[in-house]
Amino acid sequence: QLLASSSSSNVGGVNKEVFRKNLVNTLERRLFYIPSFKIYSGVAGLYDYGPPGCAVKSNVLAFWRQHFVLEENMLEVDCPCVTPEVVLKASGHVDKFTDLMVKDEKTGTCYRADHLLKDFCKEKLEKDLSLSVEKVQELKHVLAMLDDFSPEQLGSKIKEYGIVAPETKNALSDPYPFNLMFQTSIGPSGTIPGYMRPETAQGIFVNFKDLYYYNGSKLPFAAAQIGQAFRNEISPRQGLLRVREFTLAEIEHFVDPEDKSHPKYSEVVDLEFLMYPREEQMTGKDAVNLRLGDAVSNGTVNNETLAYFIGRVYLFLTQLGISKERLRFRQHLANEMAHYAADCWDAEIECSYGWIECVGIADRSAYDLRAHSEKSGTPLVAHEKFSAPKEVEKLVITPVKKELGLAFKGNQKKIVEALEAMDEKEAMEVKAALESKGEVEFQVCTLGKAVTIKSNMVSVSKEIKKEHQRVFTPSVIEPSFGIGRIIYCLFEHSFYTRKSKAGDEELNVFRFPPVVAPIKCTVFPLVQNSKYEAVAKQISRSLTAAGISHKIDITGTSIGKRYARTDELGVPFAITVDTTTTVTIRERDSKDQIRVEIEKVAGVVKDVTDGVRTWPDIQWEYPAHSSTVTDADE
Amino acid sequence: QLLASSSSSNVGGVNKEVFRKNLVNTLERRLFYIPSFKIYSGVAGLYDYGPPGCAVKSNVLAFWRQHFVLEENMLEVDCPCVTPEVVLKASGHVDKFTDLMVKDEKTGTCYRADHLLKDFCKEKLEKDLSLSVEKVQELKHVLAMLDDFSPEQLGSKIKEYGIVAPETKNALSDPYPFNLMFQTSIGPSGTIPGYMRPETAQGIFVNFKDLYYYNGSKLPFAAAQIGQAFRNEISPRQGLLRVREFTLAEIEHFVDPEDKSHPKYSEVVDLEFLMYPREEQMTGKDAVNLRLGDAVSNGTVNNETLAYFIGRVYLFLTQLGISKERLRFRQHLANEMAHYAADCWDAEIECSYGWIECVGIADRSAYDLRAHSEKSGTPLVAHEKFSAPKEVEKLVITPVKKELGLAFKGNQKKIVEALEAMDEKEAMEVKAALESKGEVEFQVCTLGKAVTIKSNMVSVSKEIKKEHQRVFTPSVIEPSFGIGRIIYCLFEHSFYTRKSKAGDEELNVFRFPPVVAPIKCTVFPLVQNSKYEAVAKQISRSLTAAGISHKIDITGTSIGKRYARTDELGVPFAITVDTTTTVTIRERDSKDQIRVEIEKVAGVVKDVTDGVRTWPDIQWEYPAHSSTVTDADE
Repeated sequence: QLLASSSSSNVGGVNKEVFRKNLVNTLERRLFYIPSFKIYSGVAGLYDYGPPGCAVKSNVLAFWRQHFVLEENMLEVDCPCVTPEVVLKASGHVDKFTDLMVKDEKTGTCYRADHLLKDFCKEKLEKDLSLSVEKVQELKHVLAMLDDFSPEQLGSKIKEYGIVAPETKNALSDPYPFNLMFQTSIGPSGTIPGYMRPETAQGIFVNFKDLYYYNGSKLPFAAAQIGQAFRNEISPRQGLLRVREFTLAEIEHFVDPEDKSHPKYSEVVDLEFLMYPREEQMTGKDAVNLRLGDAVSNGTVNNETLAYFIGRVYLFLTQLGISKERLRFRQHLANEMAHYAADCWDAEIECSYGWIECVGIADRSAYDLRAHSEKSGTPLVAHEKFSAPKEVEKLVITPVKKELGLAFKGNQKKIVEALEAMDEKEAMEVKAALESKGEVEFQVCTLGKAVTIKSNMVSVSKEIKKEHQRVFTPSVIEPSFGIGRIIYCLFEHSFYTRKSKAGDEELNVFRFPPVVAPIKCTVFPLVQNSKYEAVAKQISRSLTAAGISHKIDITGTSIGKRYARTDELGVPFAITVDTTTTVTIRERDSKDQIRVEIEKVAGVVKDVTDGVRTWPDIQWEYPAHSSTVTDADE
Repeated sequence: QLLASSSSSNVGGVNKEVFRKNLVNTLERRLFYIPSFKIYSGVAGLYDYGPPGCAVKSNVLAFWRQHFVLEENMLEVDCPCVTPEVVLKASGHVDKFTDLMVKDEKTGTCYRADHLLKDFCKEKLEKDLSLSVEKVQELKHVLAMLDDFSPEQLGSKIKEYGIVAPETKNALSDPYPFNLMFQTSIGPSGTIPGYMRPETAQGIFVNFKDLYYYNGSKLPFAAAQIGQAFRNEISPRQGLLRVREFTLAEIEHFVDPEDKSHPKYSEVVDLEFLMYPREEQMTGKDAVNLRLGDAVSNGTVNNETLAYFIGRVYLFLTQLGISKERLRFRQHLANEMAHYAADCWDAEIECSYGWIECVGIADRSAYDLRAHSEKSGTPLVAHEKFSAPKEVEKLVITPVKKELGLAFKGNQKKIVEALEAMDEKEAMEVKAALESKGEVEFQVCTLGKAVTIKSNMVSVSKEIKKEHQRVFTPSVIEPSFGIGRIIYCLFEHSFYTRKSKAGDEELNVFRFPPVVAPIKCTVFPLVQNSKYEAVAKQISRSLTAAGISHKIDITGTSIGKRYARTDELGVPFAITVDTTTTVTIRERDSKDQIRVEIEKVAGVVKDVTDGVRTWPDIQWEYPAHSSTVTDADE
């Protein structure tokens, strides 16, 4: 009965625009979302969720809690958005959370440098038919390398191509980094700089010590947080996809770096879905269907725990209603990944804007905990107690302070520190050099020069020691969900149109699964009549008691119009009161109807929205209703 | 069996301190909350909710949604925290959301001026036994008037009493207003000032037009929002009660100012609880038990809708576990209320810090919608269509522009506007004066002077017009919930200690009702044994499937210790696996145990945590278990 589904992946460029225009029109008209502060002409990149959007969002978050936090016994925390500078200095955000910006030299209007270059290349490639083969290749190469360009490279390309400010055609400044955090000041004195957090993860990392203790000092365990994050975008675009404030749901799973197995790995090992490994991307191939277990055993996915979360994310997204055909897991290329990351996969969802990164699943190794340990001086480590003490070979470096003092005077302290900080490889090289030559040139970073160390100044040896425990910094595997992006893609994947019964109208429908639907059912008295209205109110009370969100519509509008109105909100079930003993329940997508006794209605709707039973189960139990009156209008 | 309840309201000052110290110690040790960024020495006024605190918070919010949003079919919205200045200019926050601050003249440390004065007066009254009767009365008067003092009055009292900076004893600056909003800047240019919202309400007001349309252009309706709000406190104190970032849950119920009845008023009319009307406060009396219906009919509570929400708030708080004896609804005194407010009541909860305002329920009349209508130019109004056109008398003011132009030249426009803006009373006075004297002195604010208007310059008349609808600005009734404060008071009201069975230890217990409890039940194999562990895991899976948060504890610790550990988290039910066919379920406060078949456990726990059945219902159905082994440890 689905007359037209515009959501297949092969719609052309023009159809995509038409599809999106109709979708966005519907979403804004029915208040799924609203540009924030609209009566004051709004602010770019800020959106409100109106009633149905807000309900979808809280349903998605409730399902996320059930699917991840409850199912895995995660430790959920809730930290403030206001964050002092020291925390974000340690995490690297103060120095590196930047985009490259250019300014219109006359008006001061700001643009993202990479966006201007990207737009220029795309437009050239699309519209300039006179381009030489070499030029086409060059522009494609620029597009591929865009994310890796330094400010200088970006600037020289902008100059080379003669790119100017889009509106005014004025010249542009050189690109320079702009920090994307909203800055503020904590307390009345103005002396404590702070930022609105750019992610929720840091609140978990700084609490690692307490959380580890709370978990009985055992690994692995996961902590989770849902909350607002902020990014002061230079020039927001793409509607709900790139905004200045958004809800993140983040998981930090802490694990022994020497054992990244997962106890529930077997539950996801047979899942098969679209993956896009590094290799396929580098060789210009398409994403491939892989069995998750194979991707781990052949080394494509780094470890079991990372794979487990990839599988769980796949289940989460598809159960929400994301189309399997338009979801892929793309591995980060080497140049995309931070140097410390062991492996990283993005869940990308295809929508009219292209493939959009909606969930990042990264093995960040020990980077974050180490950074906060160093900055705060609080060791964020885990302990593995040995059942029996172990003998281990330990490197022992003993600088002879007296000799170093005589030789280097005031520099002694820095040289001692540098010697003690040598790693095993370096120390053994120094030892070998001292033994063979009696001295060695030794680079001291903090002095900015090399000094000559003689064999009487330091002793390096390896000793056998007894150890009772292993102390180590856990690795962290981080699945990070952009809730707003997932919801927008869900809107695209759920939206379709079908002809009205008379064939004179295109009707909009959202095929949300019950778990996501903003309202679970509507109650309609077939005609305006006090008896039917009393029944409708009785059903409404029983639905409220069962915790089911619903809506009564007692307007005199035709039943077909009322169905169409709620199909457009994605309401899965409509209860029509046409007698005082039994009513009909209509399913949104099939339009099938069954007849159910009034007392049983709330229970039936609850079972099918809670996922205890399916609609076909219910259809099996209750008689079908082939309406004459109600269909007349559809 | 409750051996000691420290939460009665008549504990003395010292006991309060001891009680609070024990409570706070327990809350921090069990990670109900954590000072934020603790490893960096924290930031005053910012707290994290750790795992059990976060679970309590999300349970409270879920219950709030069920009790208010779902029950009343409210329109829930979700707006950003980042807010442009223009919105908060209109709401009055930019100009008036301030506290008076004084600075240590040497160190620059900032203090709230009223806090210093309050502390001084309280300490004098408590410790200086030589005070004269007049002095005692004066200090008490100062305490009562504190909130009304102007900067000048506060400053002169501080000088008069010789109050200095608490730590350094340095002199203090004169008090000056400090705006409590966290300021930031939106976008890269630095030209759009913004703030972190100080409340969620404004997001609803600016969307009124769309929400009214969404509701079928019908009144009354309510919109709701849950979200973070921010207040850059000068010197936060009182732990979780006065913080710089907090969760608000706000309702804006829009109603026709001429009809403030409520369709469900009859459901709350017979509720009886502690109320503290203005009259009782002014005459130094205590709060009184009032029937809500009487409070409305005798005019104590302004209208039915306000009373309906007071009743619903009472039900909400007591169902969460707030003690009825330590909850009162206090009416604002005339000097506390904004000039536009029709009536205002605070739900105050008594805790060790005194009576704390946790929910404000205010009839704010048309103030907010009018303010945004004026500032934005978008009329935020409602319409009442008349069934038949009505004849109404309308004021018609017609300035004669030509005459005004001749008389006042360049000032003509401002005078025309001032004439047109006259209200009915003023216009009729002008009309009378013109008719009797032929001219009138007319004050033009925008010119800052009066001008002489003659009878040929303006005509004022009343005409009968046909009107098809009434256009008006709705009144708004606003219940506003400080979720963190409610949760802290709930912690105090739920906490008690009882002796261990051996009598050698004081054990902590939180008597959270199941709806609030962070974890609904625990699963304990009685002894370490693979058969019992298998059963425990089977029960755990069935609990997860039923959506019940729980914890398995398979450590070898004694069962008594394991019970005590979870009593301290407020877990209401403990399942102990002591056979492979049936298990015991223990209720936290009574310590009563019943014996239940393994397959039925999840269903029983679900029913009693969902509130479908009570513990006594369950006890009736299943055999009591009087344990020999399990009790041994308690």
